Amino acid sequence: MIARGEKVFVNAYAQYPIVLNGGEGRYLYDIEGKRYLDMMGGIAVNLLGYNDPGLNRRLKEVIDNGLLHCSNLYWNKWAIEAAEKLTALSGMERVFFCNSGAEANEGAIKMARKGGGERTEIITMENSFHGRTLGSLSATGQTKYQEAFKPMVGGFKYAQYNDLESVKELVNPNTCAIMVEVIQGEGGIKVAQEEFLKGLREVCDEHNLLLIFDEVQCGLGRTGHHFAWQKM
Amino acid sequence: MIARGEKVFVNAYAQYPIVLNGGEGRYLYDIEGKRYLDMMGGIAVNLLGYNDPGLNRRLKEVIDNGLLHCSNLYWNKWAIEAAEKLTALSGMERVFFCNSGAEANEGAIKMARKGGGERTEIITMENSFHGRTLGSLSATGQTKYQEAFKPMVGGFKYAQYNDLESVKELVNPNTCAIMVEVIQGEGGIKVAQEEFLKGLREVCDEHNLLLIFDEVQCGLGRTGHHFAWQKM
Repeated sequence: MIARGEKVFVNAYAQYPIVLNGGEGRYLYDIEGKRYLDMMGGIAVNLLGYNDPGLNRRLKEVIDNGLLHCSNLYWNKWAIEAAEKLTALSGMERVFFCNSGAEANEGAIKMARKGGGERTEIITMENSFHGRTLGSLSATGQTKYQEAFKPMVGGFKYAQYNDLESVKELVNPNTCAIMVEVIQGEGGIKVAQEEFLKGLREVCDEHNLLLIFDEVQCGLGRTGHHFAWQKM
Repeated sequence: MIARGEKVFVNAYAQYPIVLNGGEGRYLYDIEGKRYLDMMGGIAVNLLGYNDPGLNRRLKEVIDNGLLHCSNLYWNKWAIEAAEKLTALSGMERVFFCNSGAEANEGAIKMARKGGGERTEIITMENSFHGRTLGSLSATGQTKYQEAFKPMVGGFKYAQYNDLESVKELVNPNTCAIMVEVIQGEGGIKVAQEEFLKGLREVCDEHNLLLIFDEVQCGLGRTGHHFAWQKM
């Protein structure tokens, strides 16, 4: 099966040599029926485990309703109900639905620039990871990922994680936002210090900047809180 | 219901004032049970109609297997089988899976630049639409969509659709690819002339450029062919 996959997949990333086929709770099964304990807990926002009865029931309900897809040209009941749940869990006012973490960060970058008027610069962190589309990749403070795909999007500056002074040094009249992971994932599971995040909030209030928390990897319950920033 | 939606959705696009809730074949139903004939046929790649028994059965099979999500760190049987079907339908060698049309075009842009070595410029068309992430938006030849979000990604030049000479004028030693919709969607449902597409193929062969067909809106059967370029 792996040989078949290697023949038809673009060779963009390396897979571990197992072919998964099913799951149950915290366990995964490969095509030979071998069981694995999922120490990853899924990846990023996919952390609901496997074969959850409530989730399965709800998905089948949507399938049986026949509305598997609804373009954003129209309202649909399910999306409105989901948005209400997300605002309640997060304490935020509004939701923007999109297809991936990269798209979420692209959306945040665009909101920051549109709201920033003439200001276009966004401060992000060294060793961050915000995605692989060109905008989110430009926000990502790892030049090794960017090298083969230049030119990047201009207007990103990189500060040191957990070093508030390094952020303050980059703020200038063209800055519109600061973007940060509450826990750096690819950067080596580095947790933001509470005083660092509070300091960022103060810098943003002082200079009228949008503060963007990227919780694609650490949000949605992975820390035991709905969102990692809520533990602060 | 619409008032509830307007309260919790980011106001990024305008919806028609109907709330959809179900579908059957070519028909959609709103929450009051009113029936609509779907003259859009879904949007972009979503053109399989509503409540298709075969699709529903297959989706429930995957749900019951418990593997609702599998990260690309591992192989999974369903993706390999889907990739084999897509290569057979398209006559292409390999598949890159992603989450949206914008991500597909971001991937194509990155492949063009990585394969192009030192060359970084991509020629796209005026009035094209390739997506709203910063890379795909930079490829989109409509400045009105770009204005609020600058700076864009550098290295895109825009030719006239169906005007081969205007493309040739932009080719230079830094060009690595030409990207084109086989039917321009947002540009007003303009169909590429056969001699234009064949001319692009020749220009690409001559200058060692990657030819990228964006069929997010016109592919996957919407023209009566698996892909619109196959009718040429």
